[in-house]
Amino acid sequence: MEKIRVTIWNEFRHEKTKENVKAIYPDGLHATIKAFLDKNEDLEVRLAALDDPDQGLPDDVLENTDVLLWWGHMAHGEVNDDLVKKIQNRVYLGKMGFIALHSGHHSKPFKAIVGTNGNLSWGRDQKEIMWNLLPAHPIAAGIPDHFLIEKEELYCEPFYVPQPDELIFGGWYEDGFIFRSGLCYYRGAGKVFYFQPGHESCPSYHNEYVQRIITNAVYWAKPNEIVYPIENKCPHVQYKVTDEFNTEA
Amino acid sequence: MEKIRVTIWNEFRHEKTKENVKAIYPDGLHATIKAFLDKNEDLEVRLAALDDPDQGLPDDVLENTDVLLWWGHMAHGEVNDDLVKKIQNRVYLGKMGFIALHSGHHSKPFKAIVGTNGNLSWGRDQKEIMWNLLPAHPIAAGIPDHFLIEKEELYCEPFYVPQPDELIFGGWYEDGFIFRSGLCYYRGAGKVFYFQPGHESCPSYHNEYVQRIITNAVYWAKPNEIVYPIENKCPHVQYKVTDEFNTEA
Amino acid sequence: MEKIRVTIWNEFRHEKTKENVKAIYPDGLHATIKAFLDKNEDLEVRLAALDDPDQGLPDDVLENTDVLLWWGHMAHGEVNDDLVKKIQNRVYLGKMGFIALHSGHHSKPFKAIVGTNGNLSWGRDQKEIMWNLLPAHPIAAGIPDHFLIEKEELYCEPFYVPQPDELIFGGWYEDGFIFRSGLCYYRGAGKVFYFQPGHESCPSYHNEYVQRIITNAVYWAKPNEIVYPIENKCPHVQYKVTDEFNTEA
Amino acid sequence: MEKIRVTIWNEFRHEKTKENVKAIYPDGLHATIKAFLDKNEDLEVRLAALDDPDQGLPDDVLENTDVLLWWGHMAHGEVNDDLVKKIQNRVYLGKMGFIALHSGHHSKPFKAIVGTNGNLSWGRDQKEIMWNLLPAHPIAAGIPDHFLIEKEELYCEPFYVPQPDELIFGGWYEDGFIFRSGLCYYRGAGKVFYFQPGHESCPSYHNEYVQRIITNAVYWAKPNEIVYPIENKCPHVQYKVTDEFNTEA
Repeated sequence: MEKIRVTIWNEFRHEKTKENVKAIYPDGLHATIKAFLDKNEDLEVRLAALDDPDQGLPDDVLENTDVLLWWGHMAHGEVNDDLVKKIQNRVYLGKMGFIALHSGHHSKPFKAIVGTNGNLSWGRDQKEIMWNLLPAHPIAAGIPDHFLIEKEELYCEPFYVPQPDELIFGGWYEDGFIFRSGLCYYRGAGKVFYFQPGHESCPSYHNEYVQRIITNAVYWAKPNEIVYPIENKCPHVQYKVTDEFNTEA
Repeated sequence: MEKIRVTIWNEFRHEKTKENVKAIYPDGLHATIKAFLDKNEDLEVRLAALDDPDQGLPDDVLENTDVLLWWGHMAHGEVNDDLVKKIQNRVYLGKMGFIALHSGHHSKPFKAIVGTNGNLSWGRDQKEIMWNLLPAHPIAAGIPDHFLIEKEELYCEPFYVPQPDELIFGGWYEDGFIFRSGLCYYRGAGKVFYFQPGHESCPSYHNEYVQRIITNAVYWAKPNEIVYPIENKCPHVQYKVTDEFNTEA
Repeated sequence: MEKIRVTIWNEFRHEKTKENVKAIYPDGLHATIKAFLDKNEDLEVRLAALDDPDQGLPDDVLENTDVLLWWGHMAHGEVNDDLVKKIQNRVYLGKMGFIALHSGHHSKPFKAIVGTNGNLSWGRDQKEIMWNLLPAHPIAAGIPDHFLIEKEELYCEPFYVPQPDELIFGGWYEDGFIFRSGLCYYRGAGKVFYFQPGHESCPSYHNEYVQRIITNAVYWAKPNEIVYPIENKCPHVQYKVTDEFNTEA
Repeated sequence: MEKIRVTIWNEFRHEKTKENVKAIYPDGLHATIKAFLDKNEDLEVRLAALDDPDQGLPDDVLENTDVLLWWGHMAHGEVNDDLVKKIQNRVYLGKMGFIALHSGHHSKPFKAIVGTNGNLSWGRDQKEIMWNLLPAHPIAAGIPDHFLIEKEELYCEPFYVPQPDELIFGGWYEDGFIFRSGLCYYRGAGKVFYFQPGHESCPSYHNEYVQRIITNAVYWAKPNEIVYPIENKCPHVQYKVTDEFNTEA
């Protein structure tokens, strides 16, 4: 069995400095995500953090990653632009899927890959109800028509992202707001998913449905079987396809 | 100035039998809609009702309609299948836009044109907050980021319609529900808009933003300038386009 | 291993009456399709034909079909409207995927499910080059950037179908025409794929890439894991989702 | 009448150095585009070029541009990144539409705004046939089902752009290639159109249908009437929308 190589990149700062965050995610929220992904034998999951050497993604890691999950928040600006370019390039060339989690809507790679400023409105933690808008989609597999999130940071419209290729989830918030919470994007020869829950001080990554959705998304986002070379350039074609036909045909 | 010929089709039964409905829409809700559309000099608006001769849409009316608005509820089943076919055909051929209002999600023409069973969940009248999800779209022109509807019938997800070409509005409801409330569909050579507010016992068609949205939708849905014949058939092409090139080219 | 139950419905008339068709598809084109699908152990494939009892799809067959492939051409009008309703309903409820092949663009079920008159233009058999427009999509897995079809019936734009959720393939034709040839549609809780090659007098179902695409499409279109009941009605919700929250939360 | 302020940005180098280009576009291709746009009284068109001060787009020009057309080719890399950011920002905030022409697929602003590497394949000048895929769309108004371009540079699939919100035109090429040639994108609160014809050594901007399409696109892309402030930030909401309701309601 060929494994899907997953890397979970976490800014991993809140968990070190804030007691309330540490209480929920003692080893970092990426470790919590790894724990539930590890239940799938065909996933090979590793962790990466901003403060690791090469910001956690040296070339040999990136080039051996099939699906990259990204959680960042207060240090978006510290991420190297060169690294962002490499991530973007790898997605566009169909070598890697990208999953932006929660405040990753404002991360450099998400914004660059998808084509957005990632802007939204936000507010106090509150009750959220997540609605399943596209039950036919593999990312919605096993998810009820709605589920509760007892407490999440308010993320609300207007969310200035491109219309997704598939809109899978929508969030209802106690204070009168809604949000497009689960969004699929085809980009280049790769795939991107954005999923809203996951504020560092909320236990959303312990929620069974959030876990299922992220797991589903990893399988959906993995690179497709592409049988022709895709490089980051505009090939000059110097032949006629019509010449490929049998002359007798 | 060539006018856009608008026909507002209303089932027009609730208004005759229920005092609370009559109080809100004394001449029928279609008359209320006509009143605000009439403020636009380039719109020529007429009314049609289920109990009119030919169900309000004899051929000479239908064939002189550029945009058809449709409100039906308790008598969907009474609408003639032949009429539905004619409406569907006219939209597909690019001769007419179609706007389904509120319970029109379950009308025969909406379901046939768009390709859906139109199913949704519904419940008690309650507060709704309408969110503007695509401010760049002409149907959202002049609409704030959100507006209040003091009382509307609950319409909620899952709403089993096709993913729209453009999702313009989303509704938040007091009891914990959301709904995709403003949906654009290209169908054949025509255009379709669905807009959720408008329960007969709620005064939504008196709301200034609802009025603006419906007005915008009429302009958006009007037939495009199409300069080649479109008939309801599959033409047999017996030429090579390549022969159209200049021989010296 | 739970198998995906596939039924290939074929009008199956051309193959009985025309020698040139019989020469290419001696047991019917559905048998050829079955032969290559059968190479996949997790597919359980059966055949159905218009002239079989109950037009090949008695309830116990339809209700045990996960993915229905449909090839029809000269006898679209003979298909029972009741059967069409059942097929449409089953797709919308998420119990079955639907794959329309070639002239199935004009079949009753495709038109009803998707919301289209299915009109296109057509002409003489000629060379086609199929281009891969979305290499990231599972239906494009293993397909080169383009492949040749030595001879196919011309199907050409304008093709009056709804814009697909995903446009996967596009065809180039010798005489100057193009066609959107591989189209994905989410409909209700189900999925639909249309694929253009497959004229009865052309050997396209013997083409390795056509075979791979149809195989990929079967896996893509299979019903999703849906964990809540979906019936063909509009449920009346008589509760508040907000009541589901922990009172202490 | 409030005018739509259009700026046509042209790299404007080929026309100065190459006789064959100068012969077709003596004052630059932007001047040719201006000439046909100027026929519309409600358009106020100005020209800008890479070698103008501030690369043709000082702040007072950019901030007074409603729709920016962009033609660049051999000097994409010279365009200032700061200027690109300003253009991208202005589109996302809904203050300006953006139209990328021909080799503008690889321009910095197009790639940044849309989210793409803009890669395609290309080849020798040849005959192209442009097909109208969405006759209902305002950009297709007045355009026949197809039209000829006697000579254009080959631009061909795979074109690694995001799936467009609307795919309006598709090109057929003599040598066996196709291309998605007219693409609409909603981005942030703004709109983007890409249109393929327009190689500097081909007279496509003299073609009446190309002219009509670009004219239509200007009207489509103009900023919408947005009645609430949109800034480039994530607003912190510190209120409940639910508090806006009438207390008696």
